[in-house]
Amino acid sequence: MTHTDDRTPTTVDDRPVTLVDEDARAWSPRTARARFREGLAGPTAGVARGHTQANLISVPADWAYEMLLFCQRNPKPCPVLDVTDAGSVTTVLAPDADLRTDLPRYRVWENGELVDEPTDVREHWRGDLVSFLIGCSFTFEWALTAAGVPVRHVEQGRNVPMYVTSWQCRPAGRLRGPMVVSMRPVPPGLLSAAIRESSLLPAVHGGPVHCGDPSGLGIEDLGRPDFGDPVDFEPDDIPVFWACGVTPQAAVMASRPPFALTHAPGQMFLSDARDEQFRVA
Amino acid sequence: MTHTDDRTPTTVDDRPVTLVDEDARAWSPRTARARFREGLAGPTAGVARGHTQANLISVPADWAYEMLLFCQRNPKPCPVLDVTDAGSVTTVLAPDADLRTDLPRYRVWENGELVDEPTDVREHWRGDLVSFLIGCSFTFEWALTAAGVPVRHVEQGRNVPMYVTSWQCRPAGRLRGPMVVSMRPVPPGLLSAAIRESSLLPAVHGGPVHCGDPSGLGIEDLGRPDFGDPVDFEPDDIPVFWACGVTPQAAVMASRPPFALTHAPGQMFLSDARDEQFRVA
Repeated sequence: MTHTDDRTPTTVDDRPVTLVDEDARAWSPRTARARFREGLAGPTAGVARGHTQANLISVPADWAYEMLLFCQRNPKPCPVLDVTDAGSVTTVLAPDADLRTDLPRYRVWENGELVDEPTDVREHWRGDLVSFLIGCSFTFEWALTAAGVPVRHVEQGRNVPMYVTSWQCRPAGRLRGPMVVSMRPVPPGLLSAAIRESSLLPAVHGGPVHCGDPSGLGIEDLGRPDFGDPVDFEPDDIPVFWACGVTPQAAVMASRPPFALTHAPGQMFLSDARDEQFRVA
Repeated sequence: MTHTDDRTPTTVDDRPVTLVDEDARAWSPRTARARFREGLAGPTAGVARGHTQANLISVPADWAYEMLLFCQRNPKPCPVLDVTDAGSVTTVLAPDADLRTDLPRYRVWENGELVDEPTDVREHWRGDLVSFLIGCSFTFEWALTAAGVPVRHVEQGRNVPMYVTSWQCRPAGRLRGPMVVSMRPVPPGLLSAAIRESSLLPAVHGGPVHCGDPSGLGIEDLGRPDFGDPVDFEPDDIPVFWACGVTPQAAVMASRPPFALTHAPGQMFLSDARDEQFRVA
């Protein structure tokens, strides 16, 4: 299932570490997609600097309206960047990409159960699938870095930690489920910059939904994320929570559509779009 | 068709003037909706200060996915604030409002043709209609005013001028059509403030799509808008163009769905939402 060249990420406690190194930062999105198509897998934070990353969820056409409505009704976790026509494997976000092969790793869902995590979904593809590309908070990490805000999970070579919250999304037809968040520890003196920089990019989740005490989101233990890796805090760091594009996967688990394909959390689609295209001011 | 109490707006060259006076500025959205329900009609710029105004388009359920996709693919003219369930006459934006009666004036469309402009659409309502509430640029006019930017059409007691452009929207299924824009003359020294203030409200069209020469949008004569009224320029004013929520009506004209209901241009739904809810930073 995995390609094993020297770029295949090693694992720590069975978790893949991120792909990011100086080389991967400078990749073009096309190069990144080509590597992923060859089988390279791992979290994409920090890959292809300045290019917009996206969450993927593909559902059968008879679920597409409810998925689009779910996204419209929950724009913080589900800002839609593109919706394909049924059966199409391409997106306006990267016209030469193939959505079946060009992500590092996928998840295959049947009746809300995770049944496979391949690096290629050509054998699972169906002609009735409508694909949703949803903004990803990795996109604003470059803006955080430029503003002097440390990105701990990238510094520590880990996937971003993600948590299923007790906040319920507004349902849409058969689709319902909790909001998922990503968390980044932020030094108190940089909280203002972190909020400002992310807020100006609403298409990739915008400003945080919560800062501080994780119990406000029903999160019991920051050391045990539901997806991704725990990250270490520096003294005084405040946990800051952004709505996360893994939320549609939580909706799949809660709502049990017969079939869905998604990206694996943290292993995103690298689009040709530039982050600056989504900055509102 | 019109109610004739002393608030019914007078007309200039057969065009209604705006409703705005000091009294209407201070109305609550509920009061505004009650007046409109009684039959009062006219453009709503400046009514119910600080409350979010919305465009309305209601289409049969079998057109709803394409309409929602059209909006997603054209987020500048069509930022969706709410989508109702089929047949529902209420919206989360104002739970006690009735979408069939509470707008000043409606348009009824059959096969892309305008067939009626009533102040109440109860007799036209159908149980399969899905309603879309779309952000309106009247919402950011309060922010412009607060930043010292004059709003000429309000000063002059006119409806905002709107123009069908030569820019084609990205199609969605059977729906296609040109982008419509609203235009406001802005003094050069205040252009920066106008762009900044509107950009921070992307849910109500955000920053302008064009400034200056109207021929860049295929507009031949600013004095002859396609909807609304011409406005007078002060010396040195620059024409500034924002994407407009009348765009779905242009799509109805171009795409000819069998049936649609919309608001009349400039005569908006007054929601209970506050503009500040949509400010991203």
